[in-house]
Amino acid sequence: MQIKLTTGHIFDLNEGETLQDALKRNGVYLVASCGGKGICGKCKIKVIEGKYRTESIAKLTPEEIEQGFVLACKTFVVSEDITIDIPKTSKLVVGDIIEISRTKDLFELFTSIEKNIQPLINWLDIDIPAPTLDNNLSDLERLKRIIEEKGINSMEFSLDFVRSLPEILRKLEWKIRLAYINTDAGRKAMFIKSREEDKSYGIAVDIGTTTIVLYLVDLSNGKVIDTGSTYNSQIRFGDDVITRIIQATEGGMLDEMRENVVEDINNLLQPLLEKYNILSDEIHSAVIAGNTTMSHLFWGINPGFIREEPYVPVLNSFPVWSAGKINLSINKNAPVYTLPCVASYVGGDIVSGVIASKINLSKKISLFMDIGTNGEIVLGNEEWLVTAACSAGPCFEGSGIRHGMRATEGAIESVKIIPGTSEFVLGVIGNKKPIGICGSGMIDALTEMFMNGAIDQKGKIIKNKFTERIKEGFEGPEFILYKDDKREIVLTEVDIENLIRAKAAIFAGISLLLRETGFTFDDIEKIYIAGGFGNYLNIEKAIFIGMLPDIPREKFRFLGNTSIAGAYMCLLSENVRREAEYIAGKMTNIELSVSRGFMDEYISALFLPHTNIELYPSVKNILARKNT
Amino acid sequence: MQIKLTTGHIFDLNEGETLQDALKRNGVYLVASCGGKGICGKCKIKVIEGKYRTESIAKLTPEEIEQGFVLACKTFVVSEDITIDIPKTSKLVVGDIIEISRTKDLFELFTSIEKNIQPLINWLDIDIPAPTLDNNLSDLERLKRIIEEKGINSMEFSLDFVRSLPEILRKLEWKIRLAYINTDAGRKAMFIKSREEDKSYGIAVDIGTTTIVLYLVDLSNGKVIDTGSTYNSQIRFGDDVITRIIQATEGGMLDEMRENVVEDINNLLQPLLEKYNILSDEIHSAVIAGNTTMSHLFWGINPGFIREEPYVPVLNSFPVWSAGKINLSINKNAPVYTLPCVASYVGGDIVSGVIASKINLSKKISLFMDIGTNGEIVLGNEEWLVTAACSAGPCFEGSGIRHGMRATEGAIESVKIIPGTSEFVLGVIGNKKPIGICGSGMIDALTEMFMNGAIDQKGKIIKNKFTERIKEGFEGPEFILYKDDKREIVLTEVDIENLIRAKAAIFAGISLLLRETGFTFDDIEKIYIAGGFGNYLNIEKAIFIGMLPDIPREKFRFLGNTSIAGAYMCLLSENVRREAEYIAGKMTNIELSVSRGFMDEYISALFLPHTNIELYPSVKNILARKNT
Repeated sequence: MQIKLTTGHIFDLNEGETLQDALKRNGVYLVASCGGKGICGKCKIKVIEGKYRTESIAKLTPEEIEQGFVLACKTFVVSEDITIDIPKTSKLVVGDIIEISRTKDLFELFTSIEKNIQPLINWLDIDIPAPTLDNNLSDLERLKRIIEEKGINSMEFSLDFVRSLPEILRKLEWKIRLAYINTDAGRKAMFIKSREEDKSYGIAVDIGTTTIVLYLVDLSNGKVIDTGSTYNSQIRFGDDVITRIIQATEGGMLDEMRENVVEDINNLLQPLLEKYNILSDEIHSAVIAGNTTMSHLFWGINPGFIREEPYVPVLNSFPVWSAGKINLSINKNAPVYTLPCVASYVGGDIVSGVIASKINLSKKISLFMDIGTNGEIVLGNEEWLVTAACSAGPCFEGSGIRHGMRATEGAIESVKIIPGTSEFVLGVIGNKKPIGICGSGMIDALTEMFMNGAIDQKGKIIKNKFTERIKEGFEGPEFILYKDDKREIVLTEVDIENLIRAKAAIFAGISLLLRETGFTFDDIEKIYIAGGFGNYLNIEKAIFIGMLPDIPREKFRFLGNTSIAGAYMCLLSENVRREAEYIAGKMTNIELSVSRGFMDEYISALFLPHTNIELYPSVKNILARKNT
Repeated sequence: MQIKLTTGHIFDLNEGETLQDALKRNGVYLVASCGGKGICGKCKIKVIEGKYRTESIAKLTPEEIEQGFVLACKTFVVSEDITIDIPKTSKLVVGDIIEISRTKDLFELFTSIEKNIQPLINWLDIDIPAPTLDNNLSDLERLKRIIEEKGINSMEFSLDFVRSLPEILRKLEWKIRLAYINTDAGRKAMFIKSREEDKSYGIAVDIGTTTIVLYLVDLSNGKVIDTGSTYNSQIRFGDDVITRIIQATEGGMLDEMRENVVEDINNLLQPLLEKYNILSDEIHSAVIAGNTTMSHLFWGINPGFIREEPYVPVLNSFPVWSAGKINLSINKNAPVYTLPCVASYVGGDIVSGVIASKINLSKKISLFMDIGTNGEIVLGNEEWLVTAACSAGPCFEGSGIRHGMRATEGAIESVKIIPGTSEFVLGVIGNKKPIGICGSGMIDALTEMFMNGAIDQKGKIIKNKFTERIKEGFEGPEFILYKDDKREIVLTEVDIENLIRAKAAIFAGISLLLRETGFTFDDIEKIYIAGGFGNYLNIEKAIFIGMLPDIPREKFRFLGNTSIAGAYMCLLSENVRREAEYIAGKMTNIELSVSRGFMDEYISALFLPHTNIELYPSVKNILARKNT
């Protein structure tokens, strides 16, 4: 049996295989937010010709069903060939390199904290007397003796290191540069290189649930040589960490998911190495920052207990292991440092963010927020730090929203209602016809719709206004944002509910941290916003819907990807790595799901902007002006 | 194309492949002392039918060539099928379990030195508080905290260990027994097991160039449960260490040779585990003793520089690495201790022998000799130890001798000439028709032939005696030991020369060690003879030919396989392991090949029994009596 695509591609299909599995086996990845359970509706495809059997129609509209749309993850072909069309929105763009701007200020940020570069690797230049008949100590004892003469004792030697020893010592004629690392217990020899060649590079990697960002760094001067970014191809196993954990454990995909992310990193690195004429052996260290689940998956460690009460990771502070253990294609004996995690839902990316935002160095109280696939916040100063994961869910990244999508070409990123009319001005990424709506577009839409009376404070669609844009869908009322002959982009009442829940979770998290520490919004000196989504966030509108607190706008700062920034700093400095371990150890994690106060705060925040309008004086003013 | 064996087996054959390679590919291993260079003549087979092309006739007699014998390693089949017969002597018995007697006295030997059993593994029983919502430290931090409370700091955790952690902690309900080892730098966690199950086993392995011996030991009481022995299947790459080194380096066979020896050990262990109902996971440590080359090959470390001046091993003192690194099929996180080596040709088997013979604990001077594939000697007492490798070569194990073979069924092991006649009484292992001659048979033959005037003091065949037993071969005169319709077993003058060289090397080695330390034969209190060959050695005759010094017979002791005995003791005791490292470090190795005095001693010893007959008063007496 065969699957024929309208693009002309033809793939084989096995009896009893879902369309999604058959496509995946052939290298075509569909979005699978729910991990193939037939729930999220993201993997919908259109059957042009052929017989099939399908087991779920979740999220499909009656019109779509009419037109032949099915969920690929729950559809099986019956006896003959099938011809299908895959909508652009269902396709996962894996391996596409997303261009990101180079952080020019990064080195300055580093030098504002640290004066010296101290990479993970320590170097020891040694001249070993060549063996003679009168002095025929073995290679290893010969090396050890010289090291001990230099006052360095108790060095550990791995089998790999010893295996490489005889050739490299002779190739370099016994004049070597030894790379070693400091461990809890002592020192560990990593590899030997020539002294002639001064090249030494490192990579800093931010492993996000959605995207992976890599910086290639010259360790001799700390400069970022180039950067790369791609989707995390684990996305095929689900959008959010919970689905990934289920796939890794119950789905038995742990090894495959580890391979996926390592391959993503290797694929990002390869073209950079070619471009700059760098050998993989010259990459002498790596630093990884990711949330707790991503960090576990990267090392192939079972993340299963993260999602089971009492929510414990296998480890928060990671030993330094070598790159060869997970087939990262840099020097196989290069040390890999993992930013320490704080708890199951507050990971190394957040510790990294604290370092990059420097809130741990300030006397004043700051709030750090990372709004990405999840939403984590940290409150504190140089003396104390509290943190919480808000479980905002990935809706701002497009998941769980009927026409939600990531901020890529075709996404509605801004919405403006021309006052007094029912005309909408949409900003679309790439100035194309819109195909969906991304996080910033959703917040804009919510703001505009609320301000112009299209929805009420609870997010319910007001039926007697914008009547021509409202229709009844199979899940309830829907608000049409865009429509042409082919396509209709809506926000359903269910979508709006999800968005309000997400913004409420973030706001309630902030409120709770303040409440627990005895401070108020006014005590916050600075709010640092990080994360891919942060870059597109319109502060004014995020305040308007009650996601951010209503405090003076000049207190807000966008920091971009702080996870990669902190990883970069750890790559360059032993002190920063020590600080990261210290921060992770001292930070107090508040588990919101079991916190008594959180539910009150959350319920109060399920309103636009908030049940207590006094918390939002600027919004109150605008609404008052509107209503007069 | 096919190879048909006269036994009825049929194998496929590839174009351009030697017969030896084709047979090897099909699991039939031929003896290949020279490593397939067409020199040693050991892989000879008889072609019954078929066309072939051959590139060497080394060591084949004209009669053999006439009869269709060829060297399998240099013979190629031309276009058609071939039928061959493989003589028993050409076949390598790989995988056959040679039954060896259990050393009942071993535990007594151990308790004569040590009171307590201290295996490689240290155990720590800990009750870890299970995580709760109020105490949700990660698994690893939780474990670390308890360990530190017990006063054990700086423990190292491998990726493998961490990966296994979440399941095992929960399976055992947080009441665990932790296995860890002490390292130079601190401590290393190895694995976790249940406290319910007290079973704990270890293996001691002697990796000889020719045979591998394994002891399965109960670590709870130190008792040997059972033993096993097999040929080292690296033999297919050559009989002696030099050929093995060449095959490992120039031949690119390092990995394969490592796999061979590990597989041999695994194959020995498997039936024992089944017999005693032991799980491979319950084997918690291993100790390996072998010569320097065997130790390198076991770990897959390039032994190439051992045979190149200035003869340096990669390492003498081996770190403790885990079993999983080389796929030894015991608990993959079990530590493997390697007996330290002294120099390129004095290995861990000799250090093991010193420990088993206890010469390092005596005030008096003793001599330890291991006559196996090579010949190593150690002289000393509790204060000092000197050692030398004699390069006796493997002729006593059958290599380099026309009809030489190992001491297995069909080997002539004793020779007696009935005085005044030319009648020979031969003792054959297994009371079969003889098919070759082994080491003890060679020494017997040499003694008898010399005593009865068949050869002179230089080992030249005296032509006017035993005339009917002397014939001219293609290499010179040959002495017929046995003959029937089918077979003739001879000692050639070249064989005798080789034997005299070998015995001279051993004697000269002993003389030199005495000379260097300023002692004489009379100062030696005990001579300990170890090694497989040692067991069959007739002291009287070995003295007669001048291989052993002419000192009172009661000073000689046979110790059997001291390599396995020392490995066994190291398996049971930290103090013994420390002593082994100490011995290896303090022992002075004298490189005979570059020693000025050695050549003089050697040349003087190329005589039966010795140029200076005054060194052999008892032989002088016998000869004097003979001649009167």
